[in-house]
Amino acid sequence: MSTAMTSKSRRTFGIDPGLATLGWAVIDHDHGQIALIDCGCIVTTPDQQTTDRLQHIHDQLLKLLHQHQPDDVSMEKLLFTKNVSSGIAVGQARGVATLAVAEIGVPLREFSPTAIKQTVTGDGRADKKQIHQMVKLLLKLDSLPSNDDTTDAVAIALCGAQTHVFG
Amino acid sequence: MSTAMTSKSRRTFGIDPGLATLGWAVIDHDHGQIALIDCGCIVTTPDQQTTDRLQHIHDQLLKLLHQHQPDDVSMEKLLFTKNVSSGIAVGQARGVATLAVAEIGVPLREFSPTAIKQTVTGDGRADKKQIHQMVKLLLKLDSLPSNDDTTDAVAIALCGAQTHVFG
Repeated sequence: MSTAMTSKSRRTFGIDPGLATLGWAVIDHDHGQIALIDCGCIVTTPDQQTTDRLQHIHDQLLKLLHQHQPDDVSMEKLLFTKNVSSGIAVGQARGVATLAVAEIGVPLREFSPTAIKQTVTGDGRADKKQIHQMVKLLLKLDSLPSNDDTTDAVAIALCGAQTHVFG
Repeated sequence: MSTAMTSKSRRTFGIDPGLATLGWAVIDHDHGQIALIDCGCIVTTPDQQTTDRLQHIHDQLLKLLHQHQPDDVSMEKLLFTKNVSSGIAVGQARGVATLAVAEIGVPLREFSPTAIKQTVTGDGRADKKQIHQMVKLLLKLDSLPSNDDTTDAVAIALCGAQTHVFG
């Protein structure tokens, strides 16, 4: 991880929403310079009540957003899921994540999976391994986060950051 | 609508979740006596940002829950939707509704569409018209709410109330 960049730099918070694991990442960017500030995941378990899981996700995420004070938030646009039931579960987690973003009052930008792949790797059909390799390369990381959902959140934040840097 | 029943009566709040229209209803029940106290719907429009829509739903619902102080909340368990996209949209609304219930700290009970039909009409395969007729009959209403999502919420609250009364 890096320390915060200059006061002129812009901070993007990335979210990979999910009920069991919600990945998050904080990236600072300033005229082509990009640094990963922090990342992690919020975990809930199926033995918990759905009310408790959603409240935990909302409260933890709101705490992180207050702590890191991003200028904007990037989230993956969910177009398809394996099945409708998992779509509803992810939709619920997305709902409370979106609410937390609304509560801190910063813009939420949504990117399709293809846009994220295209922006991060230059290839809209890149596989997960290629994306993760580019995340490691662009952010000059010694190693990737151990949790895949966290790495996905870093890629989503990177997509948000790069569309500011190069867009 | 009726006025609140005795202090011994139990109050159930019913929610029919949706992003465009979220129906809600308040029912008091005490040993076979059932009364509809209030009902309505929270409406958002597609021209609004999703962040604003979800925050409006959450904040309005939380206000209603604080106002009516229910003992428990009933919500329809979403098993299937017409398509995955509408499942995600309803899932997001469900997420912020569930969070509002978690925030007031009362139990949330979820009922499948079949259970609601079975409890309200005695027939798990009843159609919407039959359900609405039974809602009108059981609650001694002169007319049904003009909005179908509101009437559905009344049916959901009635299901929650009846499983206490007769369960």
